[in-house]
Amino acid sequence: MIDTDRASRPGGRTARVRADVLAAVQAELAEHGYDGLTIDAVAERSGVHRTTIYRRWKTVPGLLVDLLESGADDSWEPTDTGTLEGDLIAVNREVHAALTARPSITQAVIAASFRTPEAAEALTRFWKDRYARTALVVRRAVERGEIAADVDAHQLLLTATAPIYHQLVLLRQPMTRAQADYHARVAAKHFASVKGADLP
Amino acid sequence: MIDTDRASRPGGRTARVRADVLAAVQAELAEHGYDGLTIDAVAERSGVHRTTIYRRWKTVPGLLVDLLESGADDSWEPTDTGTLEGDLIAVNREVHAALTARPSITQAVIAASFRTPEAAEALTRFWKDRYARTALVVRRAVERGEIAADVDAHQLLLTATAPIYHQLVLLRQPMTRAQADYHARVAAKHFASVKGADLP
Repeated sequence: MIDTDRASRPGGRTARVRADVLAAVQAELAEHGYDGLTIDAVAERSGVHRTTIYRRWKTVPGLLVDLLESGADDSWEPTDTGTLEGDLIAVNREVHAALTARPSITQAVIAASFRTPEAAEALTRFWKDRYARTALVVRRAVERGEIAADVDAHQLLLTATAPIYHQLVLLRQPMTRAQADYHARVAAKHFASVKGADLP
Repeated sequence: MIDTDRASRPGGRTARVRADVLAAVQAELAEHGYDGLTIDAVAERSGVHRTTIYRRWKTVPGLLVDLLESGADDSWEPTDTGTLEGDLIAVNREVHAALTARPSITQAVIAASFRTPEAAEALTRFWKDRYARTALVVRRAVERGEIAADVDAHQLLLTATAPIYHQLVLLRQPMTRAQADYHARVAAKHFASVKGADLP
């Protein structure tokens, strides 16, 4: 179809409305935090009518999920540093930065995921996709002969990344970037020493 | 004081009211889940007047926090199996059981912690205490000469336990008990191979 409606063309009015609304969500989140985020404030700041926002995004968690997905760049893949340890450190620095950013969109979506099933499902979808893409780090390490071919990629990625999430999100305690790097090194060293799949 | 008021004596009316109310919270949680938990239903089931419940526990998260703390047996300490790996497997099985129980009080309190600051603070307090007690596992391993004396106990415990929380609570994906055991072994093996503190 050549004669597409202008409103739905990428870069058209719909895209501009989305960009304006999501920029307002991010700004409101920065100023007032998750608990202060309201559709009225987003409407006010973005200049988009609240009826439009309710129709398209429905709820505050709906807005946060779309903000998360808008940042989930389709072309994202893990940095290739040439070693498993380097690649995992790069992954862990991204996770650490996302969770300690002020405002942290990830932390806000996690909070939303405990309030609405839609946000929980969107977050699960987002992370499934991200962990699947990050498994490339493991495949590259297998190709370089750094680790055994039958290492369980997901358990390896959990060893590296889970301590950051647990400490910063659930335990609600500080974690330095050096500590985040440390867990990348624990995973790289341990799985390089494993001769074959040792998962039952 | 010898002439204490009967109502505040342990085992007296206050203790019985608490036991009845918390039993009702647990039963309501099992039947209706966190989102179906209401003070009215707890009052109805326990036979304790709702005014009493509001006065003492204030909110649904308040009830959950007290349920968590009532289960936090003061004498709890980690099982002594004689090896670091055995001890960590025992810890991980407790964590896995707590998160996969139906109903899971821990999962309900985690959900509550994203709704009220009181629940978040209570959960942080509870886990700080539990991780501090669990560090005994690491001290015993140091005494047996299994690991270096300057290993960071908390990072070791994060390596073992964090993957279970991350997978079951945040990623909302299944994890078998065998996989939980696996992460205990990863932590035990890695930290036994560390010659000294390698944390920057």
